[in-house]
Amino acid sequence: MVYPKDFYDLIENFKLFPGVGDKSAERFVYCVDEMTEDEVKAFAENLKKFKKNIKKCDICGHYTSNNNICSICSDKSRDLTTICVVEDSKSVFKFEMSGTYKGLYHVLGGLISPIDGINPEDINISNLISKRLNENVKEVIIALTPSIEGETTSLYLQKLLENKNVKVSRLSYGLPIGSDIEYLDPITLTKAIDDRKFIS
Amino acid sequence: MVYPKDFYDLIENFKLFPGVGDKSAERFVYCVDEMTEDEVKAFAENLKKFKKNIKKCDICGHYTSNNNICSICSDKSRDLTTICVVEDSKSVFKFEMSGTYKGLYHVLGGLISPIDGINPEDINISNLISKRLNENVKEVIIALTPSIEGETTSLYLQKLLENKNVKVSRLSYGLPIGSDIEYLDPITLTKAIDDRKFIS
Repeated sequence: MVYPKDFYDLIENFKLFPGVGDKSAERFVYCVDEMTEDEVKAFAENLKKFKKNIKKCDICGHYTSNNNICSICSDKSRDLTTICVVEDSKSVFKFEMSGTYKGLYHVLGGLISPIDGINPEDINISNLISKRLNENVKEVIIALTPSIEGETTSLYLQKLLENKNVKVSRLSYGLPIGSDIEYLDPITLTKAIDDRKFIS
Repeated sequence: MVYPKDFYDLIENFKLFPGVGDKSAERFVYCVDEMTEDEVKAFAENLKKFKKNIKKCDICGHYTSNNNICSICSDKSRDLTTICVVEDSKSVFKFEMSGTYKGLYHVLGGLISPIDGINPEDINISNLISKRLNENVKEVIIALTPSIEGETTSLYLQKLLENKNVKVSRLSYGLPIGSDIEYLDPITLTKAIDDRKFIS
């Protein structure tokens, strides 16, 4: 073995991360070598703390630090009448960064995909129907990726919510801002015409 | 803050690594989330162990794990007559991977660069001259990058080694294997002609 053992071990650890191959892993290890001992210790502690403290919220399934209820579900100033159903916590972060949506979320933790063996009972759907649709909730926004799995899951949710006395909506389809019509696919353009808005 | 604290802390840690921005750091944290607790613990421990155990060899300045003398300097089967002078440990790993060089190394830990305030006394030169040129050593190979700093350091070493009763050589310049003459720079081509080898 060309590398000393501790060097080699750390390379192998870094190679577990997405997009990190031999070269990048080696560069990361040189970077660790240049960090102070305190920086490396802090990093190591943060890794362990993350794994220990980060849990899924008992209510919505989003990440939460230290508590059983996430900061969104426990924020009394939020709009309790709307629940936005998303695939995963990444979507929650994205919506929170956009900063305009003030309602609650429900994280499914996946999409229905029979071909991959993921059935409705494998994702966090039953909680949504049985526990979250209280008298406050007026609208459920389905905010899933427009893929086959996303559409399947949307349809399934739509059926379940049919007689629940809530409005059900989905995200609009259309032109992404900053796009060029020249490069858009025909399906998006079709959707953009179908969902056109009258402006006068 | 959109992210829970432990999540955010870990993103900031990952962003210290070269080429890792917001997006990659976030992806790395999701990857940590998907690792088992044992995997994360092993990673954290390896980080701390690396920082604690990896030192510079007392003789050559190359990385060593746990010992004061690196595995190359303590390997009695190596050719003790030749010392290859390199800029850093990365070069040692590269030569070791190529697998043909069986002599010893001397790691300078940098190159002379007055413009960056790096003078001969700031890199590991004096040890080479005062401690390593014993009666065994017949040849010193200067294996530095052909940059201005590399050339400056080479010239400096050459002067110091002039009267030391050792042969001094440098790596050959020329076409890299697999290259296409069409795309090579004129300086490399000039060197390749200057250093041409007669084959019959």
